[in-house]
Order: sequence, then C-alpha cells, then structure tokens
Amino acid sequence: MLLTRRSQAVENTAMDNVATERRAEESHRQDSADLLIFIMLLTLTILTIWLFKHRRFRFLHETGLAMIYGLLVGVILRFGVHVPRNTNNVTMSCSVNASPATLLVNVSGRFYEYTLKGEVSTVKGPEVQDDEMLRKVTFDPEVFFNILLPPIIFYAGYSLKRRHFFRNLGSILAYAFMGTVISCFVIGLVMYGCVSLMKTVGQLGGDFFFTDCLLFGAIVSATDPITVLAIFNELKVDVDLYALMFGESVLNDAVAIVLSSSIGAYQPAGDNSHTFDATALIKSFGVFLGVFSGSFALGVATGVMTFTKLRDFPLLETALFFLMSWSTFLLAEACEMTGVVAVLFCGMTQAHYTYNNLSPDSQNRTKQLFELLNFLAENFIFSYMGLTLFTFQSHVFNPMFIIGSFISIFLGRAANIYPLSFLLNLGRKNKIGSNFQHVMMFAGLRGAMTFALSIRDTATYARRMMFSTTLLIVFLTVWVCGGGTTPVLSFMTGRSTAPLHGIQRRDTEHERAWPFRMWYNFDHTYLKPLLTHSGPPLTATLPACCGHLAHCLTSPQAYENEGRLHNDDSDDLVLNDGNATMYEDVTVSTDALGTRTANPKHSRMPAFGEHELVVRGTCLVMQLDDPTMSTPPPATSPPPFSDPFVDPFSEPRRNRL
Amino acid sequence: MLLTRRSQAVENTAMDNVATERRAEESHRQDSADLLIFIMLLTLTILTIWLFKHRRFRFLHETGLAMIYGLLVGVILRFGVHVPRNTNNVTMSCSVNASPATLLVNVSGRFYEYTLKGEVSTVKGPEVQDDEMLRKVTFDPEVFFNILLPPIIFYAGYSLKRRHFFRNLGSILAYAFMGTVISCFVIGLVMYGCVSLMKTVGQLGGDFFFTDCLLFGAIVSATDPITVLAIFNELKVDVDLYALMFGESVLNDAVAIVLSSSIGAYQPAGDNSHTFDATALIKSFGVFLGVFSGSFALGVATGVMTFTKLRDFPLLETALFFLMSWSTFLLAEACEMTGVVAVLFCGMTQAHYTYNNLSPDSQNRTKQLFELLNFLAENFIFSYMGLTLFTFQSHVFNPMFIIGSFISIFLGRAANIYPLSFLLNLGRKNKIGSNFQHVMMFAGLRGAMTFALSIRDTATYARRMMFSTTLLIVFLTVWVCGGGTTPVLSFMTGRSTAPLHGIQRRDTEHERAWPFRMWYNFDHTYLKPLLTHSGPPLTATLPACCGHLAHCLTSPQAYENEGRLHNDDSDDLVLNDGNATMYEDVTVSTDALGTRTANPKHSRMPAFGEHELVVRGTCLVMQLDDPTMSTPPPATSPPPFSDPFVDPFSEPRRNRL
Repeated sequence: MLLTRRSQAVENTAMDNVATERRAEESHRQDSADLLIFIMLLTLTILTIWLFKHRRFRFLHETGLAMIYGLLVGVILRFGVHVPRNTNNVTMSCSVNASPATLLVNVSGRFYEYTLKGEVSTVKGPEVQDDEMLRKVTFDPEVFFNILLPPIIFYAGYSLKRRHFFRNLGSILAYAFMGTVISCFVIGLVMYGCVSLMKTVGQLGGDFFFTDCLLFGAIVSATDPITVLAIFNELKVDVDLYALMFGESVLNDAVAIVLSSSIGAYQPAGDNSHTFDATALIKSFGVFLGVFSGSFALGVATGVMTFTKLRDFPLLETALFFLMSWSTFLLAEACEMTGVVAVLFCGMTQAHYTYNNLSPDSQNRTKQLFELLNFLAENFIFSYMGLTLFTFQSHVFNPMFIIGSFISIFLGRAANIYPLSFLLNLGRKNKIGSNFQHVMMFAGLRGAMTFALSIRDTATYARRMMFSTTLLIVFLTVWVCGGGTTPVLSFMTGRSTAPLHGIQRRDTEHERAWPFRMWYNFDHTYLKPLLTHSGPPLTATLPACCGHLAHCLTSPQAYENEGRLHNDDSDDLVLNDGNATMYEDVTVSTDALGTRTANPKHSRMPAFGEHELVVRGTCLVMQLDDPTMSTPPPATSPPPFSDPFVDPFSEPRRNRL
Repeated sequence: MLLTRRSQAVENTAMDNVATERRAEESHRQDSADLLIFIMLLTLTILTIWLFKHRRFRFLHETGLAMIYGLLVGVILRFGVHVPRNTNNVTMSCSVNASPATLLVNVSGRFYEYTLKGEVSTVKGPEVQDDEMLRKVTFDPEVFFNILLPPIIFYAGYSLKRRHFFRNLGSILAYAFMGTVISCFVIGLVMYGCVSLMKTVGQLGGDFFFTDCLLFGAIVSATDPITVLAIFNELKVDVDLYALMFGESVLNDAVAIVLSSSIGAYQPAGDNSHTFDATALIKSFGVFLGVFSGSFALGVATGVMTFTKLRDFPLLETALFFLMSWSTFLLAEACEMTGVVAVLFCGMTQAHYTYNNLSPDSQNRTKQLFELLNFLAENFIFSYMGLTLFTFQSHVFNPMFIIGSFISIFLGRAANIYPLSFLLNLGRKNKIGSNFQHVMMFAGLRGAMTFALSIRDTATYARRMMFSTTLLIVFLTVWVCGGGTTPVLSFMTGRSTAPLHGIQRRDTEHERAWPFRMWYNFDHTYLKPLLTHSGPPLTATLPACCGHLAHCLTSPQAYENEGRLHNDDSDDLVLNDGNATMYEDVTVSTDALGTRTANPKHSRMPAFGEHELVVRGTCLVMQLDDPTMSTPPPATSPPPFSDPFVDPFSEPRRNRL
C-alpha cells in the first residue's frame, strides 16, 4: 500500500515534470517565432534599403524605412492576430507588504522560484491586456540600454573625426553641455505650463510632477547622430560644420542620459511638490558631475588600457578589442556609472590610440564588426519603434500634451542653438554662420537614445504619456525633418547669397587656437608615443633628463615605425563603405619635436618633421607654426569612385555647399 | 482628511516605486559584475593563448586552458566570496495544484507579474543553497542551446571541407548515424547494469530509469569537432582522414541532439518500467527520423534561399547572410525542429552555394565574423564548464557511476569505431587502416555539445548525476586525450611500420565511386548553375529542349563568370588565420558538359573543359573519366608561410604522417 502510494507520487512528479517541460518548450517555441518576426523585419528592411540604394531613391533614410515596416507589422499583430492570454496564469493574494524580487512558492511541498517581471497595469481595458501575442513581442526595456544602444554609441565614438572634433571641442562642449541643460529646462518649464493647463481643464488622467517634466526635457533633448550623419551626407557640408553637428549630437546623448538619471536621483527625495529645493538641486548636480566624469574617466582608462601586442594573431586581437570594449560598459554599469557614456569615450579613445596598435587585418576586422553591429542594432531599434506604436499596451496619447511637447522641443532647441551660437561667435575667430544655425536647429532629430530613455520606465501614468509622446516625436522628426531637411536647406541656400559653409575658412589661424594647439602638442609628444607604436618614440619627445624612463616606456615597434609616422596616424581611420560613409579626408601628422623643416613644397611623401594634411587624393603640406607657409596647393585629383553604386554625394566635401 | 489620506497613498506608491527601482538597479549592477567576471575570464584566456602561441607551447589546447581558468575562478567564487541570499525572498504557500508559468500576485490591490524560473531543489544543505553569488553566475541552460551553440555548429558546417566530405560521405554517415546509435545503446546498457549494481549495494540516492541511461548514452556520444580540429592540426594527418573524423564529429552532434530529444519523447509516455515497449520505441524512432530530416530540409532550404544579389553593398550582404543563418535556427525551433541541426546544414549549404554569390569583401567579412563568434562562444562555453564544476549547487558525484561511465564510453566508442570500420572496409576500395581506427577511438573527445545537452535539464537526481559525471568526462577527455593523443600517436606510428595515412591513396578510383560521381555531376550540372553565379550557365548544362527555362533561371553574372569558373568554386573557401586553420588545399572544377578535352598537360590556367585539382601552389590536371590520365604531377612549391608565428604544422598535409 505504502509502496503503491509512493510510486503514485513518483508518477505524479514525473507527470508534473513533463507538464512543466512541455510548457517550457511551448514558451520557447513561441519566443523563437517572435524573434523570427524581428529577423524577418530586419531582412525586409535590408532588402528594401538595397532596392533604394540600387534605384537611388533618397527621400527616406533607412531608419525611417525600418520604422515604416515596424508600423505595418505592428498593425498586423495588433488587429490581425489575436492570441488569448495564457489561461495558466494564477492570481493570488498575498500578505507581503512589498513586491519582492524573487518569490518562492510552495506548491504542495515543492518549491518554485519566481522572479518579478514588473507591475501589471490595471488601468487599461481587458481586451488589450489579454493579448498574449502583443505582450510577447514586447522586449524588456533594459535590452535597449544594455544590448542595442552600446554598439551604436560605441560606433559613433569610434567613427568620430578626431581632428575636427578637437578643433571644435570648445563649441561642441558648449552645445552638448550647456545646450542640453538649457534645452532640458526650457522643455521642462514649457511642459510644466502645459501640464498645469491640462490639469485646469481636466485633461490630465494622473499625476504629473515637475520632476517628470524635467525628465521629459532631458529625454527629448538627446539628438540623434545616426540621422544627422545621413542627412549631412546628403547635404555635402563643410567638415567643420559636420564635426560640430556630429560631435554635438554624440555628446548630447551622453549628457541627456546622465541628466535623466540625475533627475531620477532628485526624485527619490520624495519632493514632488512644486517648491524649489536648492539642496536637492545641488545634489542632482553633484550626481550629474560625478556620474559623467566617472564614466568619462572609466571609458578613457579602459580605452587607453587596450593597447594590444597581439599583432600577429588578428583573431585574438579582434576578440580582445571587442571584449575590452564590452567590459568597459559592464564595468561602468557595475560601478553605478553610465555604461553608454563610458563606451562612447572608450570608442573615441580606442580610435585615437588603440587603433594604431592593431594589425591592419584587425583594423579592418574591428571596423567591419562594429559597423555590422551598429547597422543591425540601429535598424532593430527603429523597426521596434514602429512596432511598439501599435503593440505597446499602455499608450497614453493626449493631444494637448503632444502639441505642447512639439512646441516645447522647438523652443528648447532654439534656446539651445541661437543664444549659444551668439555667445560662441563672440569668442570664435571663425564664426558659426546664421544659416548653419538654422541647419543645426532643423537637424535636431530624435532617435534611438530618446526612445531607449523613454521606454526604460513606463510604470506611472506620467511616464506612459511621456513614452507615447516621445514615440511620435521620433517618428515625426525622422520622417519630416529627416526627409525634409534637404529640400528646405537647398531652398535656403538657394535664397541666401552667402554659401552655407558657416565657418569661415581660416584653417591655419584656427589650428593655432591655443587650446587646440596645447592639446595637440601634449597628445603628440607624450600620449601617442606612450600609448601607441605609431607616434615618435618617447626618447625623441621627452627631455634628455628622462632618457632612461623614456627608453623603458617605448615599444621596439615605435622605433621601427619612426620613419613612416604619417602613414598610420589615427586620424587616418577610414570607414569606407557605401552605406554609412564617414568622410575620410584628412590625415594629419606633425613633427613631434616642433622643429621647422624648410621643405614647404608639395610632395606625396613628406619628410619626417613636416605637417602634412592630406585631402583625399590631394596633399597639402603646411607648417603649423609659420603663417607664411599656409597657402594650400590646389586639389589635384578628384576622389576615386570605384563602385558604381556608391552615392557620389555621400561624402561631405571640404568645399562649400 | 480624505485628501491627506490620498496624498499619503500617493507618497506610498512613489516610495514603493522607488524601492522597486532601487532593487532593479541593484540587481542590474550585480548582473553586470557577474558578466564582467566572464569577460575577464575570456580576456585572460585570450592573453594566455597568445602567450602560448607566441612561445609555441602546444601541450594544451586553448579550450583546456579556458577550462582551467574557469576552474580557478570557480574555486574563488565558491570558497572565497560569500554573499548571503537576498533576504527579500518570500516563501508563500499557495493553493494551486501546478506551477504556472506566470503568476499574478495581488499585493494590497496592486498586481505584480512573476515568471517561473524553475524548481528550487530542497535536497542540498542550506549553506550552499543560500549563496546568492553562486546562484547569480549560473546561466540559464537554454543560453547555451540558443545563443552559444549555434555559432559553433554553424562555423563547423561552414568550414567543413566539402569535397573531402562528399568523397567520404558514406563512411561519415555510417559513423555518425549507426555509430552514434550503437554508442548510445552500448553506453545505455552498460550504465543500466552499473545503476542496477549501485541500487543493489545501496549507492543510489534516487530514481534512475532505463530511459535515463539511454539519454546519458545519447548525451555522451556527441564527440567534439573543436578539439578534433585542434588535435588533427597538430597531427598533420591525411586530408581524407581529417574529413572522415571531422565530418563524423560534426554530424555526430546533430545525431546525438536529435537522439536525446527522441528519448525525451519516449519518456513522457510514463513508461519508466523495465519492460520493453516496442510501440514507444518505434514512436521514438519516428520522432528521430522526422526531426532529423525536417531540420535537415529546413537548413538546406534556407541555406539555398540565401543567394543574394547585393554584391555592391558588402555591409547589407553580410547583415543579410547573418540574419538568414540566424532565422534558420529560429525557424527550426519555432517549427519544433532542432535549430542546431538546421544551422549545421544551413552552414554547409551556404558554404557550398551562397558563398559563391557573395562579393569578395563579404566572403571575407562573413568568414571573419563567424570565426570570431565561434571563437568567443567556444571559449566561453569551456570556461563556463570549468566554473560550473565549483559553482553549480546541485552536483551529485557518485564514484561508481563515474567509473562505470568511463568504462561505458570507452566500450561505446569501441563498439562504434571497430565493427563499423570493419564493415566499411568490406565495401571500401580505400581501406580505413587499423592505426587510424585507433586514432578515431582516442580522439573521441567530448565537448561543448555534450555539456550543453547535459546542463539543459538538471531537475531530477538522475539528471544531476549525469550532469556532474558529464562534466568530469569532458574535463578528462579534453585534458588527457586532447593533450595526450599527440605523444601516444607519435609512439604508435613510430612502432608501426605502416604510415598512419589510413586510407590507401587511390584518388582517381575513389573519385569514381558511383555515389560520389553521381552527386558531383548532379550538383555541378544543375544545382550550382541554378543557385550560384559561379557554375556554368544552365543553358550550357540543361538539354536543349529546356533551353527557354534554362535561360530564365540563369543569372546574367553566370555568363560573365563562365570563363573563369575554376576561380570561384566553392571548395576554394579559405579560412586563413593562424588560429583555427582549416586546410585549404584543394580546388576542384570540372567540365560541366562532361567532354574530354585532350589537354592533359600541367598548366596554371587550364582551359574551360578540364578537370583541375589545385593543391596549394601545385596544380594537378587530370580527367575524371580517364584512368590513364590520373598520374598527378609532383608538388612544385611548398606552401608559403608568410607569418612567422603561424604554426608551421598547423595544416594537415596531404602526405603521410
């Protein structure tokens, strides 16, 4: 009898196991099918991008296309497919006060572990709530932050034109830091006015605090480098303008993400009242500075650390490079910094230093790898954006809020660009033209970062409304501004008599702006020799008293490379493909000793000790310290276009628009 | 009063939200730190691999190294760090009968969603159970199957030498199918004897059914291509032996995985008794055949489908190639097939057909991408294996079972190799030498697939014991056999007078074995022209009556390529790096019309219509249908080794050992 009962129990256990297994299998099958939808979406996008490139349609950027496909699939999933929610769900009441992260459930003597997935909203109607399919295609928002955003941001940093970036560093930092803060507060204040109005007329269905407004400001202040890149490729603008715009939109993201987490730190103080709390504000500011500088330091540190000596094994080298970049992200996240910001600076540092130490094969491999990851992640995010407009189950669309937000982002961008440009022009020798200010105003598209920031938390009514509105902002800016900037600006430049080059070309004076020159000298004399094989050996750059130290710190390869310095300078980073072309026109190398060599002639292979500036098939030789030598020779040959399908306009020219 | 209470409630909600957020942040921080451990492990492994390669140590394969590092970190985590289990866990009793996949918990009016993570074992002592750190570094077993295994298996398929593979197809299939089934049943029976003995002496702490024994047999019958590759690179064996061994170990995995899932399908019938159930066996066999052929068909179908016309955009092409391979996996999983098997055949098909349609840039990109993915996944799995020996919290080590399993895998492998080789030799013109049979016997290492299969389910006592034992088997085979095969075989070949080339070299007769020739002709006349640009146009290969159809199905590029056929034949797939060198010696092209051209002279660039066999710098011209033409010219130049650090022995020679 006892035996029978025991074997019965065993049977039951086996049956239970089988049932659990079946369920797990079923769930896995479903997951695969869902993921397949996205892969198919990406495949479709790629095929259409190809068609567009092939047929030379250029009225819509590929990200816009990905969004449209996402929208279509979203509509199908929303209205075409209906899978009722799994009936196995059990609702149980529970005497615990809080919701623990892990729950052990005692089911007739056997313990099952459950993990918290999130609060289930009870606001919406049951018919939407119950759709299992829609719930399934909804990703964990953290996926965006931890998997999809890092490669995009890393690639942006890795492909940033360093020379032009550093030349305009002051202006870029002004736009990125002050500009984003201004934009955030302007948008926050306008939205607070809007929300107050909505409350008065009874349009507000939940709480919306001032901190929420500020958070919204921070979220939508992040402009997108991807779309900036695409539009500017078509606009063929000046490289300096491009550096200004691209640098701003890259750093912008970093500032916005840290800003939004600082506002988050401000919020937990419980102070959701309307009174102004100076202490909390200072605390937030401290958090902002700490997180930003910490992430910056971490990114730069690991970026500098990865100078590899594995030149003989490209596979190992590439793998190490990839892992170090990834570990930067993880390390920053583990240290409660911002991984995305760390990855951005890591990418910039690696492009500047580590890239020089890689073997040519690895240089190629890393570029192609990150390019592919960036491409896939970018298109995935944009198609998911399209999808989520229909599949996200807790949208809160409020017409007043939407209109208010469009007005506010316009005002915020204007308050960022125009006053700052005015102030910067006071100090700049090479002014930022008013036409270019309009370009910056218009091309402030919102993209992946804004989306990732807004989907991160959709727990409250305010956050949901912010998310839905952000989605619309991204759509409209990408489609309308992205598609419309080109004709608008063509019209603008056609109307204006002055060309849209914005920055007056006074290269040599500009080169000699002291912060640029100081940085450049320091970098070239100490950092590059220390961190790469490509600079001059430290023994040549350090004073004689440090001879022994210099000798220890210099790699044998640096001596070997001494003769061919200009060939593998990091500014030579070329990302050459027809799709996401960075312009690769300027190679700079300088004499580390600062000596003036009396050889101002144009030559293809300048002697060591000259300042060389190569412009795509053209070679300008000039001396940094001698203004009389600054006349560049004329461009001799047009850039070679070997591929018939490469967009001949995809490279911004050095010349005027 | 009411207002105060409401604002109090709001405050509480806000506080709750903040607490939840904090917890989520903390958990995310922890996750990042854990992942960082693995990244650091991989980084360390890469650096040591580099050191080994640099210093030319070759007594340990890199996977063995990864395991050792994993073990060390496992020891540290297990005995050095102790993080008590999160005290937020709440155990609740629940009136539900089964354990649902999703649980909605009503916490004072607000609903939280929980997802089932798995059953928590109550067998072990509380001191292990409570270590949060160990629990945290334990991955979801499905990660191995769905993320790490596919790139490894795909790469194995993509880099399989197709010509040699097809030439030995019969033998490979015999070993892979019949051999694995024999091995599975031998091991199962021996283990059943062992388990019965253990039960008699009271050594068994739980249930262990006959199906469990069979499952164990299926799991440990999967030999590992990775280690085979590494060892055979050192052994410099004959390419045919290599193809036999590599092909067997690759297909082996596919058979073992389907076999183990078929045994799973046999089990749910509830028949765990010792009686033999013919119906269930036939059902299992049906499942096996269905799943295998379904996965095969799916893999081949999608592999054939991905012939791309995006040659002008390597980035798009590479992205599409990657997505199609991945979607094969997902599609198979969604169709209840086996994704890993589908991916294997997809890889083989793509290497045979699609590869020819890619642009040279994409050929390079895809090779490098999959090589990198394979390298990272492989080293990750092996270091995780090392780690899990100490961090897995439910190990069941049973000395009798372990000894029994070692005996059984030895017997199983012997029962696979020797009888089958004997039978195959009856039919084969080129015999498999007895020395080579010993090599196959010895080199049957267990690796990533065995591990992934055994960790997939560790719910019961039997499964746990199987997992722990499997781990030991992998360790010992990789370290002892992996490290020891080379000296053992050197001794063996030194002792024996006959060289260890195994297959007697009668290339031309072998080429003319009818299944090979039939397949080759069919493939070259119909499939390649249809599916790639590289074959002769269909208009040339189809009979005249099908002229119109042939014209429709032939791409314009095929005509262009007609003149330079032999240059981009798929067998030319070169995976050239110093690390995982596939040997790239044989390029074959044949006359599609089957005409005999009277030009038997040695020439570098044979005229269209000849059968060309290029052996790394050597060029043999012979005619397939004419035995008198079969004398190959002598090798004229040794293969060029441009890289000083490339292991000069890393390429298996065509010649004798």
